[in-house]
Amino acid sequence: MAMDGYKGFLGLLVSALLVGFLSVIFTLIWILHYREGLGWDGTALQFNWHPVLTVTGFVFIQGLAIIVYRLPWTWKCSKFLMKSIHAGLNTVAAILVIISLVAVFDNRKARNIPNMYSLHSWVGLIAVILYFLQLVLGFCIFLLPWAPLSLRAIAMPIHVYSGLFLFGTVIATVLMGVTEKLIFLPNNLYSSFPPEGIFANTLGLLILLFGVLIFWIATRPQWKRPKEPDSSILQSRGGAVEGMEGTLTVSLGGNMDKSDSELNNEVAARKRNLGLDEAGQRSTM
Amino acid sequence: MAMDGYKGFLGLLVSALLVGFLSVIFTLIWILHYREGLGWDGTALQFNWHPVLTVTGFVFIQGLAIIVYRLPWTWKCSKFLMKSIHAGLNTVAAILVIISLVAVFDNRKARNIPNMYSLHSWVGLIAVILYFLQLVLGFCIFLLPWAPLSLRAIAMPIHVYSGLFLFGTVIATVLMGVTEKLIFLPNNLYSSFPPEGIFANTLGLLILLFGVLIFWIATRPQWKRPKEPDSSILQSRGGAVEGMEGTLTVSLGGNMDKSDSELNNEVAARKRNLGLDEAGQRSTM
Repeated sequence: MAMDGYKGFLGLLVSALLVGFLSVIFTLIWILHYREGLGWDGTALQFNWHPVLTVTGFVFIQGLAIIVYRLPWTWKCSKFLMKSIHAGLNTVAAILVIISLVAVFDNRKARNIPNMYSLHSWVGLIAVILYFLQLVLGFCIFLLPWAPLSLRAIAMPIHVYSGLFLFGTVIATVLMGVTEKLIFLPNNLYSSFPPEGIFANTLGLLILLFGVLIFWIATRPQWKRPKEPDSSILQSRGGAVEGMEGTLTVSLGGNMDKSDSELNNEVAARKRNLGLDEAGQRSTM
Repeated sequence: MAMDGYKGFLGLLVSALLVGFLSVIFTLIWILHYREGLGWDGTALQFNWHPVLTVTGFVFIQGLAIIVYRLPWTWKCSKFLMKSIHAGLNTVAAILVIISLVAVFDNRKARNIPNMYSLHSWVGLIAVILYFLQLVLGFCIFLLPWAPLSLRAIAMPIHVYSGLFLFGTVIATVLMGVTEKLIFLPNNLYSSFPPEGIFANTLGLLILLFGVLIFWIATRPQWKRPKEPDSSILQSRGGAVEGMEGTLTVSLGGNMDKSDSELNNEVAARKRNLGLDEAGQRSTM
């Protein structure tokens, strides 16, 4: 549980949770107080699920999924468990995003409004597609026990980078969405500083602040999960190690990255595990 | 000049320059072909300097300033020279941004349109203020030779993080700006897929792609400027080293960061320089 700057971490974590939670609450207030509320009938009530579900899933839950490895009280848990929680949170986010898209497309169809013309929709759809790709590839490469470690070594920095960039792109997309919604207010109302405009602008700033905090927590090397993994999970994955070491030395040599250190960690663990298996065999002989 | 994955770096650098340059060209085509062109007369012609100057300065030039330390053929140059180029590019960007803001405020005043009501303007103004703060603090802490190394050690990770986050925020602000401009097209023209809409959406995607490339180049640890600095510049800064070593050991010990390694570098260089000075004194004795 030892961690450099633990108090600073805790302060930032609490701030991030608070600001993220406030963003969700602000979105709900915007929809329930300033707009017509929620429903599933093809009207604006159905559209309104879109901001609620994207801010909840694509911003707040995705943000939590990103920093889940950083929580020091989870460092006792196995890496496999933490990966499952990371993947699980991202899956929940993905489901909420799909529902939020159905809400929009249904609403547009019912009201005969064209789809996919705005920059918000272009960037948003690209982000959703890449998010699903990231989820499926992440599952196959990092969770399936038979994925070659050499592949994990190559994929890790890309996975980390794509994840962070997608999170940033989602925030930018939300800010465009807020902008669209407010400019569409009748009679150019937005420019006369209506309470709804100021409120939704503040929501935009909160979401940006959530991004500042999550990115900071995620990119501090001193707050990374330490190198010692739980050995209990490793024993169940011993079978995948055979014949890997040669490949690994080659692929890990050239392209060292801060995210690779996590992987090295796992490589070391697997090698150790291989040792354990051998020892196990020896003891039964 | 040795660098891991030099060809990959070169490919990404050329792509980034191409995409960044294309973004500026697309902005010019948007303004000159689809809009009324440029002028300085209080009309929309004056407003049009805003997108041209922000994309040129705040996106393209700021992007170059971020990756200037990564160019391997500059590793022979002194760190001080590279810092000056980094600061210089950011100063040029800052000047273009100020002119772009004057263009908007002048235009709004002439046409009696309210200011600062949109999320684009809120986020944009915050970004500009923080950008200037970053520039001034960066100059005082990293360029002025008498800045304490302990302060540099504390400030470096914050400087790097703020710089990258501000660049991302600027991209998000540009995407909001494009969105605003297109939704303001008369008769809800945007929703009928006009050539201007598709063209400006494509510009938005180009700017996002520029961000992907710059962030990737900036955050690869294997592409960082190597630890050996030019000794010629160090001699001119020898005076600042006195009495620093004690402070340094304390401040560098706890909070090691990948950006700190650049600083360690400089610490080592200053210490070596101190050694050189001593040697110089000895040789004159």
